[in-house]
Amino acid sequence: MMFDINKQLQKDTHYLIKKDCFHLLLHKNASIPWVIIVPETHVVEVFDLPEATQQSLNKIIQQVAHYFRQEFASTKMNVAAIGNIVSQLHIHVIGRQNGDGCWPDVVWGNEYPFVEWSNEKLKKIKQSFELI
Amino acid sequence: MMFDINKQLQKDTHYLIKKDCFHLLLHKNASIPWVIIVPETHVVEVFDLPEATQQSLNKIIQQVAHYFRQEFASTKMNVAAIGNIVSQLHIHVIGRQNGDGCWPDVVWGNEYPFVEWSNEKLKKIKQSFELI
Repeated sequence: MMFDINKQLQKDTHYLIKKDCFHLLLHKNASIPWVIIVPETHVVEVFDLPEATQQSLNKIIQQVAHYFRQEFASTKMNVAAIGNIVSQLHIHVIGRQNGDGCWPDVVWGNEYPFVEWSNEKLKKIKQSFELI
Repeated sequence: MMFDINKQLQKDTHYLIKKDCFHLLLHKNASIPWVIIVPETHVVEVFDLPEATQQSLNKIIQQVAHYFRQEFASTKMNVAAIGNIVSQLHIHVIGRQNGDGCWPDVVWGNEYPFVEWSNEKLKKIKQSFELI
């Protein structure tokens, strides 16, 4: 199946890893930990995915959340499929905490400080995702 | 199990129906169709719900989406669990379309025109949800 990750998503993120049929991308702004999951599909709504794919997706969301809690002390996950601008199905998993640059607002459409991931940190995150 | 729907959620919505362990609430602003699903649980993240509950939830999301497509010509669903302000688990299902009062932005944190549901429309929606 021909599948290209949407160019805007590519531009906004660092590629982490492919797990099963899911591409995991890390948002370039390090100030709030944010993974975008892109299933290799042309379906545009999560609830229209085959049931087994939804179950796998949920497991990956859980793993990302677990990592965010451990690594960034995130206390609340924001999990969303929006797709008003980029229609290619992608699921946001964002590790939030009281006091982060956007709290308690949502990240979408809000301005908050941009911080680059260091090469070292990026490498560490990639390695961690290879193990989950 | 003692379970009260959070007061802020109650204030923002009209109660529609309880289906299995899920309370379905309709956002009071009729200008964008928006259902909030509240599972009777003290779990705070969707992915921490028992797998069977996640599957039932997904089915209800699908039914709400189907209804929004039919009744309001929604072309894209925004499905999200956020909970930064109201921590009681609740899932937003919002029927969006190009040209609605918020498009292409997300609804959260954005101002858009407030329109009341008519009693007639509200009654019709309740009846429709009793059938799904």
